[in-house]
This record gives sequence, C-alpha cells and structure tokens, in this order.
Amino acid sequence: MKIKQVAIVCGTHGNEITGVYLMKKWQKQSQLIQRSTFSPKLVQGNPKAYEINRRYVDQDLNRQFSATSLQDDSLTGYEQLRAKALNQMIGPKGDSKTDLVIDLHTTTSNMGPTLLMPQKGTFYNFLAAYVKLKMPEVTVFCDEDHKPNNEHHLVCTMGKYGVIVEVGPVPQSVLRHDVFEQSEILTQHILDFVDLYNQDNLPELPKQIEAYRFIKSLKLPLDEHGERIGMVHKNVQDTDFKALNPGDPLFITFDGEVIPYTGEQTVYTAFVNEAAYYDNNLATSLMEKIQLDIQ
Amino acid sequence: MKIKQVAIVCGTHGNEITGVYLMKKWQKQSQLIQRSTFSPKLVQGNPKAYEINRRYVDQDLNRQFSATSLQDDSLTGYEQLRAKALNQMIGPKGDSKTDLVIDLHTTTSNMGPTLLMPQKGTFYNFLAAYVKLKMPEVTVFCDEDHKPNNEHHLVCTMGKYGVIVEVGPVPQSVLRHDVFEQSEILTQHILDFVDLYNQDNLPELPKQIEAYRFIKSLKLPLDEHGERIGMVHKNVQDTDFKALNPGDPLFITFDGEVIPYTGEQTVYTAFVNEAAYYDNNLATSLMEKIQLDIQ
Repeated sequence: MKIKQVAIVCGTHGNEITGVYLMKKWQKQSQLIQRSTFSPKLVQGNPKAYEINRRYVDQDLNRQFSATSLQDDSLTGYEQLRAKALNQMIGPKGDSKTDLVIDLHTTTSNMGPTLLMPQKGTFYNFLAAYVKLKMPEVTVFCDEDHKPNNEHHLVCTMGKYGVIVEVGPVPQSVLRHDVFEQSEILTQHILDFVDLYNQDNLPELPKQIEAYRFIKSLKLPLDEHGERIGMVHKNVQDTDFKALNPGDPLFITFDGEVIPYTGEQTVYTAFVNEAAYYDNNLATSLMEKIQLDIQ
Repeated sequence: MKIKQVAIVCGTHGNEITGVYLMKKWQKQSQLIQRSTFSPKLVQGNPKAYEINRRYVDQDLNRQFSATSLQDDSLTGYEQLRAKALNQMIGPKGDSKTDLVIDLHTTTSNMGPTLLMPQKGTFYNFLAAYVKLKMPEVTVFCDEDHKPNNEHHLVCTMGKYGVIVEVGPVPQSVLRHDVFEQSEILTQHILDFVDLYNQDNLPELPKQIEAYRFIKSLKLPLDEHGERIGMVHKNVQDTDFKALNPGDPLFITFDGEVIPYTGEQTVYTAFVNEAAYYDNNLATSLMEKIQLDIQ
C-alpha cells in the first residue's frame, strides 16, 4: 500500500505548544514537509485549548477516539465534539481517507525524542528501523498489543496508520529550542521514510532494533481518601527508559519514608512524573525492553 | 529588633504546588517549623488558583502588593481582593504586624535553590551569609535597589522583612522530590537563622558572599504584530546564573536564524525561559554579579 494521504496533527494538547509553533513554521514554508510522493495536511488538534493555554477545555482530546466514543452522540463536551469533527476531516476511523496520521506531542518527562506506535506490523517496524538508523537517540515506544485499533482512544488511530512524536522534557506552555528541534527532525525523518517507502527505495535497515513495550501504569501513593501522600523518588525522576529493579526506591512520602518498587522483575520507566497525569495520580508507565525484528 | 511574628506563605501561585504540599506537611508536623523564639503562621496564598491548577484566577497575586494597589478600592479582581485580605491578615504593608514574610515559589527555570531578597540591609546580609554557610548551593538574588519597598508588588513585601524561596527547575503543576527537599531545607535554614538572630547567637559568618543583582528583563523576539518569531537559544537554556557575553547566541528564530546578545558587557541570566513569563513575552532576567559585604 502506498501512503498517499498524510495528516500532521499539532497542538492536540493546548499547552504542548511546540507542535503549534512547528505548524506555524510549516504553514509558512510548506516545502519543508512536502515530499515527491505526497503532500501532508496540517491540522491544529485543539485550537481552543491552545487559546486558553490548557491541555484541554472539557476532556483530554487524545482519549476521545475509540470507535464507540466517536459514534456516541450523547458525548457533547468540547473535545468530544472536536473528535467527531476531526474524524470527519481526517478519518473516519476504521475506513480512513488518511493513510498516516502523525500526532505531535511533548512531555514534561525526560523521554528525549520518542516514536510512539500504538499499532504493530511491517510498516511500523520498517519506520522504526529507519528512524533509529537516521536518529539513533530516538526511543521506540510500542503500545500495540493491548487493544485492537478500534478501541484505541488516541488521535493518531484515526488513520490507517498512526504514530505519535513525543519529545521531552519540556514544561507545559514552554518552547525549548532543543525539544523544538528534535520534534522537527523526528517528523522530517518520518516524512522521508514515507517518501522512500512509497518509492520502494528504502536504504538497508538494521535487522533488529531495541524498543520498549508498555506494560502498565503505576499510581502515586495515596491515602484512604485518595489524597497523595508522596511523590516520585528522586532516584527515579528523569530516568525514563532506564531500569527499575525490585527493591529500588520508587516513591518517597512527604514524611520521608521511602517506598521501594515491589515488582518481581526489572522493568523500565516512561512518562515519569508527567504533569498531565497528575489528574489520574499516575506516577509512571512501566515498560519491558524488547527487540523488534525488521522484515 | 527581634523577629517575633513570622509568616510562611505557600501556594501564592496556584500551580507551584511544592509550597502547598510543604504547607500540608508542616500543618501536620508543626514542630518542624517552630523555633524556641517564635512560631510561624502558615498561610496558603491563593487557594482558589490551586484548586483550578493555574497560576492565578484573574491576576498574578505576586504583583498586587504595591501600597497604591492595596489602597485602590476600584481593583476588584480575585487576586486584587485576596491581596487586601492577606494584607489585613499579615500586614498592613508599611506598618506590619509580621516581622518576616517567607514566600515559597518554584520556577520552571534551572535556578536551583535561590534566596530572593527584594530589600537590602544588615538583616538580609546576615541571613544570606548564614544560608550560604549552611547550604552553599543556594544562589542569593538581590532585587533591592530599584524600588522603595512601598512600590514593590511582591507578597513578601507585606512584612517588615520579606524573602522569597525560589527553587527550580520544576514544571508547573509537578512535585519533584529534589525541589521539594531543597525548598524545605532552605526554609528550615531561614527559620534557624531567625532563631539564632533573635538570641544574638549567630555563628561566625563569611565576610563576603557572592550574589546576583537584577538589572532588567529581556523580551523574546517578536514581529511587528507582537507575535513571537523565535525562542531562547539552546546555549542559554538552563544556564541560569551563568555568564552571557556580548555576541553569544541568545535567541533562535523559528526559521533558524541565531540572534546574539548585543549588550556591551558580560551579564548573568536568571528565570531563563520561565513558563509563567510567556504572558509578557519575557525571555530572561539579566543580572550582575556582586559581592555582599557582611557586617
């Protein structure tokens, strides 16, 4: 299958402003994102949330794209409506006019440039291998095998294929030059890949690449009333994609008591202490390290 | 003069949550902030802004404390009213029942633990020297000689004396263990100092300490419509209290053009790329390095 229709979604979260400024740049200089075999559509995910400098108005837009939610007319919050409008423009999910959706995000966590892939398959493996070849500092984050695509609630799952460009650390509502640059370069590599893929002209790719697969999220320590009683331990802060071993310090209570990680095997962290996940008291994602076979 | 009445203000900015969690801790364990010669009052600066997880509701609370604003009954925004209420509780400014106000803040900038002093004098010099003796990693930030205290708009200027504990980097709405710990330890040292000062029992202090004095703020590059056209250059990002020399890269436009610093002498940065200052398109504060004589 050739990738003819590509959409780049920027500013899905209103306070992740890197994508919005990249969009403004690319609107002025569209040659930067055009390729010989396609011309991407630029879409601002949540302009109203950007205006008020918040992640969202009513709901997190990047949780509204399950097939069930998109078809549920009783969901009338701002982002629930915006999801339906985007699905009309870019989707419809399950039978999409868009071959690839690239959704641009940033995180307050120290994740560096990350390629997040919510589905799996040959196309994704080739893409990940190409990106690692061109930009070895990218981490490949697989979130593919826990849900069928239809149930996935992410913006990028509207396309036949979809990926997230996720770069950090950057505080909400801040532009960091390094994060801006990494986001731009990673997106450029994805566009280059698609162009080469369309022309059956990919370079020789590595046979295997390292990646991380999402296992589950861990909650912050809470008391019986749901009040936070501690925070992420400083040994874990900023250690995204590093090993967390059984017995390692994980949290510290406000009173100074260290709570260790009690899992049975070594895992790897991601989205450590992400600001936006405080709403749900999420402390970190836990990942397993895997090898992707490229063929 | 003995320091009998001390107020610790936490959560003056609603999304600087470190202070709020320190307040909750100290409310439960008041012995941590009590000293033999005084017992501080704990005050949450802006509870409503904390509830909505924003810096402020209507105005920045930490800009509402000039004598003129406090006396202006036509100022009826939420923080303008809150300032008057706090002034009644802690002040009144100019004739304050509170000898020392300690106001707890965090920043997204890489400033480390910083003691910010908006006034000057022997008390401040002794305090700064004591803090440097006990916690050498603290930076002393002087903002004293540009305005008389009456015109200062900061919360802490309500007291006879007032200081700000300013620690970063931490994204807005995030608790970082290291920043929490530094904020707590720095505050403890200030309380210890006051207790020793009250007892004429200060240890031998250094004769001179290094500090930084605010000169002015620099704006982000804007076009003729006031739209941002660039960001802080990555060479300057995270370099708070480091030298910025004439000709050094300072900004980069979104098109990739480097804009150098064009001042005539070496200065030092602070509040580099602070999230909250985007409202006013402030890129960084410029500081001069000074020596404070302790006597």
